[in-house]
This record gives sequence, structure tokens and C-alpha cells, in this order.
Amino acid sequence: MLFFTQCFGAVLDLIHLRFQHYKAKRVFSAAGQLVCVVNPTHSLKYAPTRCAAVQASTEQGILPPCHHHEVVHDPQLVPCTCPLFSCPWEGHLEVVVSHLRQTHRINILQGAEIVFLATDMHLPAPTDWIIMHSCLGHQFLLVLRKQEKYEGHPQFFATMMLIGTPTQANNFTYRLELNRNQRRLKWEATPRSILECVDSVISDGDCLVLNTSLAQLFSDNGSLAIGIAITTSKVHSSEAEM
Amino acid sequence: MLFFTQCFGAVLDLIHLRFQHYKAKRVFSAAGQLVCVVNPTHSLKYAPTRCAAVQASTEQGILPPCHHHEVVHDPQLVPCTCPLFSCPWEGHLEVVVSHLRQTHRINILQGAEIVFLATDMHLPAPTDWIIMHSCLGHQFLLVLRKQEKYEGHPQFFATMMLIGTPTQANNFTYRLELNRNQRRLKWEATPRSILECVDSVISDGDCLVLNTSLAQLFSDNGSLAIGIAITTSKVHSSEAEM
Repeated sequence: MLFFTQCFGAVLDLIHLRFQHYKAKRVFSAAGQLVCVVNPTHSLKYAPTRCAAVQASTEQGILPPCHHHEVVHDPQLVPCTCPLFSCPWEGHLEVVVSHLRQTHRINILQGAEIVFLATDMHLPAPTDWIIMHSCLGHQFLLVLRKQEKYEGHPQFFATMMLIGTPTQANNFTYRLELNRNQRRLKWEATPRSILECVDSVISDGDCLVLNTSLAQLFSDNGSLAIGIAITTSKVHSSEAEM
Repeated sequence: MLFFTQCFGAVLDLIHLRFQHYKAKRVFSAAGQLVCVVNPTHSLKYAPTRCAAVQASTEQGILPPCHHHEVVHDPQLVPCTCPLFSCPWEGHLEVVVSHLRQTHRINILQGAEIVFLATDMHLPAPTDWIIMHSCLGHQFLLVLRKQEKYEGHPQFFATMMLIGTPTQANNFTYRLELNRNQRRLKWEATPRSILECVDSVISDGDCLVLNTSLAQLFSDNGSLAIGIAITTSKVHSSEAEM
């Protein structure tokens, strides 16, 4: 009996996901963009101070010695950059993507322009919606986080990090776009390197920030669709262009 | 002696304003846009509930009976819509612009695209930066407000209101754009009618919202440049275009 109940639940979940996918496809179909339904994950790790050392060393242009072991075995090793878990893993930058996919089950999508459809926006903070995005020969990590920076007032923070060095990150521009109910909000910036730590980017507020009321205006039935595009960074050569 | 000190102060202010104007012109010169330096005004009026009646009646498609007199003399009269002062004036919609110019000294600018340069962003909340913008045969009121929606955490709210009816407002789209330090933030929406009251638009959060940290990233030496453009609203005919 329990088996049948579980099967029925799984089928219902599948129908719900397909419905959301088709709904998003309908909204964005004109642009022919790939729509990715991203389910939330309640963040198990919450230690913003962990990143201070990572950021300081990254700013000095060296790979960070900050990880969960006391002794640095190899300065070329980086800690696990998964924003969800305190993970003791460390490895070379080149294998971070496979670690995130295999150990933390973070999906990866291909394409220059995709739509990130975050479900269940009503869930309490802290909650993260995460995917990897493969584009222009590099991999990026997109993080949408619901967090109470001010107690009792949750906000949504969205940013894109390059799984690469800060120097490589400077070659790109990412764009996040919300478009609904005759309102449009666009954020364009240079992605930060994954070595700079997503927690510090969010605590600095250097990302797309949405109050709950604005997130509700842009969301449809509890889901928020974010259009994502990545380009090489020549767009920003002149700040005069408005 | 006091006279000379005052004169010297006035000359210094003038030099400071010209300096800010040239600095903004340098940033935006490529686009050939008109730059308007807007000084802050400490808001003397702060009664958000005043607008409830205005909004309710506007949603029903009638002109608002909410004003500072107990008796409604003429349903065609509207109260003063100046966001800065509790003003007992009331008059026809057609003369609101001249009232705002003459009584409240709000400047008016011509042009489809202008740059609004708000100075002294560090001033404590509540503070407003206000201009009128004449474009496409109509007048718009641009309000940038620094306000503590959550105590101790000031935020910046920017919106554009049409000095006209909600039906007229639906014909337009306004765009506010911030562009600095390899970051760009764009907000596009249908302007609200001035009859809907700016306080309620801001308390609903249905406008461009900036945390202090983001405002600092976009500001230059305490001034925030906002590019403004108004178009007819056919842009929003399809939400699919991302």
C-alpha cells in the first residue's frame, strides 16, 4: 500500500513539473530559449565568515588557502564551492564542475541564453536555487538565494559566478532579466570568480536584489522565471552608453 | 562681513553644482543626453495612509475625493500631488503642473531621454529628489525617495508618475537605468497615474528598489545618475521577448 502511495506521489510530482515546464515554455517560447525548472534546496550550511580568507587571498591574485583542513597540502587546490553544504572536499579548479555535479547533484545546462524557472518561492529563508550553466567554453554557477539579511524581511539575491579565476571572469558579462506584468528588470554585471565565494557577493549586495513584494510581482503561481544570457564583456567598454 | 561670507558660500555652491554637472556630462556625453542636477529635499510630509482613499477611488475609475478639506466641493478637483508637503491646494488635473512649479518649485525638463543626477545620497531618510519631465505631449513626475521601510535600513525607491489619468498612463512605458562600475540595472514599467499617489506605489515596492550597498556601487562621489527614457507602451505587447 505504501509503495502505491509513493508511486502516486511521484507521478503527481512529475505531472506538476511538466506543467511548470510547459507553462514557462509558453511564456518564453517566442525567444526559443531553453527553460530549466529548478527546485529549491534548504541551505544546510550557513557560515558567511568562512569566506573572508578566500576573498582576501583572491583579491591578492593567489588561489585561496581557505578550506576545512588545518594544513595546506597544495596551494593549487581549492575548497568545494558548493553554496549549499559545508563540504570537506578540495581539488583542482578544473575538477570543481564534476565534483558539483556528482557529489552535490547540481544540474548543468548548455546554451548562450536559458530561462531559469525557480519554483516554490514561498519557502522560508534560507533557501537556494542553483544550476550550472555551460556557455562560451566555460561553466558558470547561477545562485538564487532567499535570505533574511534584516531579520523578518526576506529578500532574493541572484548572482552568477564563473567556475574559473577572477582574471577569466573579467572576460564575461552576464545578464539576468525578469519580465512579467508589464514590468521588466535587468541586471548586467561581470561575473565574480567562484573563488570569491558566493556568500560574500550576496552579503555585499553586489547582485540582483529583489524585495519580497517585487519578487511576487514577477512570479507566476509561486515560480520565478529569470532569463539568463552570457556574453563576452566588450559590452561594458563604455559606461556612457545608456 | 556676514554678507561677504554668504556671497562666498553661494559662489562655492555654484562651483560645486557646475562641477557635478560637468562630471555627469562627461559620463553621459556620448549619448548627448540632457543632465539635470537634482538636490535633495527633506520630506516634511509623512502620512502614507493619506493615500488609501485616493487609490481606492482611482481603481474604480473615478477622480479621487481624498483631499484636506472635509467637504468635496467638485468631484473634478484633485488634491495637490506634491510628495513633499501636506498642501491644502486642490484644483483641476490640467493645472497640477503649474501648481507644482509655482508653489513647490519643482523643476520641469524637456526631452525624451534625460539624466537625473541626484546629489547628496548620504543624507538621512526620509529624503526626496523630485523633478517633472515633459515628454511626448505629457508631463511626468520622477520621484527618488530614501526611506526606512525597515527601521535602521534605508532603501532608495524610484518611480515615474504621469500627471494624468490611469487610462492615459497605460499608453506609456518608462525606463530607469543605472550604469556604473561595469554594472547595469534597468527597470521598465508602465507609469502610474499621479492620482494613485506616490506613497502607495513606494510602500507596495512596485518601483525600482535599491539597497544602500547597491546605491553606493552605482553612485559617484555621493551622486546617483539615473538615465530616464519614456516611450509609448507598445514595447510591452509581448512578454515573451526577453
